[in-house]
Amino acid sequence: MKPNGLVMKSLQLRVSWFKDDALPIDQSSLAELNPNILLTGWSSLPLDAHWLSSRECKLRYICHLGGAVKWLVPRSFIERGGIVTNWSDIPSTSVAEHALLLALSALRNSGHWLEVLRGGRKSTNRIEWLNTRTLFGRKVGIHGFGRIARELVKILRPFGVEIRAYSQGVPASLFDAMGVTQVESLVSLFTENEVLFECEGLTPKTSGVVSAKILAMLPDDAVFVNVARGGLVDEAALLREATSGRIRVALDVMTSEPVAPSCPFLQLKNVVMSPHIAGPTFDQYSSCGAFAARNIARYLGGTPLEGIVSLVEYDQST
Amino acid sequence: MKPNGLVMKSLQLRVSWFKDDALPIDQSSLAELNPNILLTGWSSLPLDAHWLSSRECKLRYICHLGGAVKWLVPRSFIERGGIVTNWSDIPSTSVAEHALLLALSALRNSGHWLEVLRGGRKSTNRIEWLNTRTLFGRKVGIHGFGRIARELVKILRPFGVEIRAYSQGVPASLFDAMGVTQVESLVSLFTENEVLFECEGLTPKTSGVVSAKILAMLPDDAVFVNVARGGLVDEAALLREATSGRIRVALDVMTSEPVAPSCPFLQLKNVVMSPHIAGPTFDQYSSCGAFAARNIARYLGGTPLEGIVSLVEYDQST
Repeated sequence: MKPNGLVMKSLQLRVSWFKDDALPIDQSSLAELNPNILLTGWSSLPLDAHWLSSRECKLRYICHLGGAVKWLVPRSFIERGGIVTNWSDIPSTSVAEHALLLALSALRNSGHWLEVLRGGRKSTNRIEWLNTRTLFGRKVGIHGFGRIARELVKILRPFGVEIRAYSQGVPASLFDAMGVTQVESLVSLFTENEVLFECEGLTPKTSGVVSAKILAMLPDDAVFVNVARGGLVDEAALLREATSGRIRVALDVMTSEPVAPSCPFLQLKNVVMSPHIAGPTFDQYSSCGAFAARNIARYLGGTPLEGIVSLVEYDQST
Repeated sequence: MKPNGLVMKSLQLRVSWFKDDALPIDQSSLAELNPNILLTGWSSLPLDAHWLSSRECKLRYICHLGGAVKWLVPRSFIERGGIVTNWSDIPSTSVAEHALLLALSALRNSGHWLEVLRGGRKSTNRIEWLNTRTLFGRKVGIHGFGRIARELVKILRPFGVEIRAYSQGVPASLFDAMGVTQVESLVSLFTENEVLFECEGLTPKTSGVVSAKILAMLPDDAVFVNVARGGLVDEAALLREATSGRIRVALDVMTSEPVAPSCPFLQLKNVVMSPHIAGPTFDQYSSCGAFAARNIARYLGGTPLEGIVSLVEYDQST
């Protein structure tokens, strides 16, 4: 089978994916089209479990241009042999890069730069007042040890940092292979490190696991970076820590997104916030589209797909 | 000789160096004290060449807690055998780190994050609108190849970037040793790269060398980062490029510092500006103080000093 036409069509779909005027297909139109293959993205509507399990539904492959799929696809679809792929590890480098950017920003107190530049602070003591800190030689902790964490380790290496990580269920060999010290608990991870990266997946087991008690373990002036999911953290406790100025905070994710304009974190200059943009970057969208197109071509050609979401991965994922 | 008392005294001097109320010693007080050794910093006043060359002046060693010394010490002091040290390569890693932070910030358009978070932009197309870009795989150019540039190369490596550099008078072997491609001209450097780091020393030869013509060679949407000196660049031309939105700009340094609150660069959201804080960071001040204290102890003990500013270095430096 020649997949060229399909590749082109899926690339068009990719383009429309992020256009303002692209409306997600609704359930009745979907049932009418009744496709074998469905390409989905962030704007897609959750699929109806009842329709998916119906006799007339022909859908066998969902090619998702995104990471998390739980909100989109019911587990039963995979249980019945339906195939779901996501964008696999394409955005891992980009998310790791953004985590580094957020950490460096917090260490240099970037939220106060404009104030200093506009003359709010005396020029001669600006570095003391900003209390700038270097990443070189710091003790770094990573909560989570999936693809993003492992990419992060690679870009942290030249800074001569000591890296400790914690993630339940990850085999010791994986930490060893990356030269990372595995710690036994979240308490140890938060107590022993000055820069803490939140990279864990959000599951019922990890939801809210970064509690007020755990956050309180961070040393004074530590940096807490979250590029994973807001739901991992007790957000009220984090806000208290940030408001007191005891720790520095840098967040790409929040429990509820988009954040309200009145979000109290937005008022704090010692908090660096980005609007959930860690990955992929806009210039990687075409790679994501090409990846999806290749997967669809493979599906049609009967060759193995990349980025298949297994039931185990489904259960472990956000 | 036991240098312990002196070490303590110089550490006290270090502390007062960045205090708000520390007044720089003036020429008449200096002549009255008439020390053999002088510890200087950013707030010190330029030394009087006439007094330095006078018969009664006992000053033989100037231990400067800073990089540039031209503004402080006349060349004639070194010509007559006076010793000047600076803080050597202590801040190199910190400046390189800040250069990376500025580049990543510009690639992710950090100046627009708050606007997006506060609801100025529709959430679904925020990544397209921010036009976020990754550093991974980019073509990177470095103007200058001193200590800072070489530290920068090390932290850029994990991003899988192609690195080209240009600096007049630097031997090819130095580029080769770092796995960097040496280019023949500033025109090539600016034409061929998507992220351009300005790390060159400011001398009469390099002043204004990044002209309007050179800046125009940068590809559209390129990132221009300056952690060296504002005087290297035609600032009016840079402002035109930044205002048009053709390129992204990230500056730690300006021709005139501190900048005026009305500085037009401050009004541009596609320009990332920091208040000349690249290096050293505040947490490195104690290392700088310890370095100076060790040097003074060595001077008194008659052992070789670190960070001596030779006449060649004096002439090449900013």
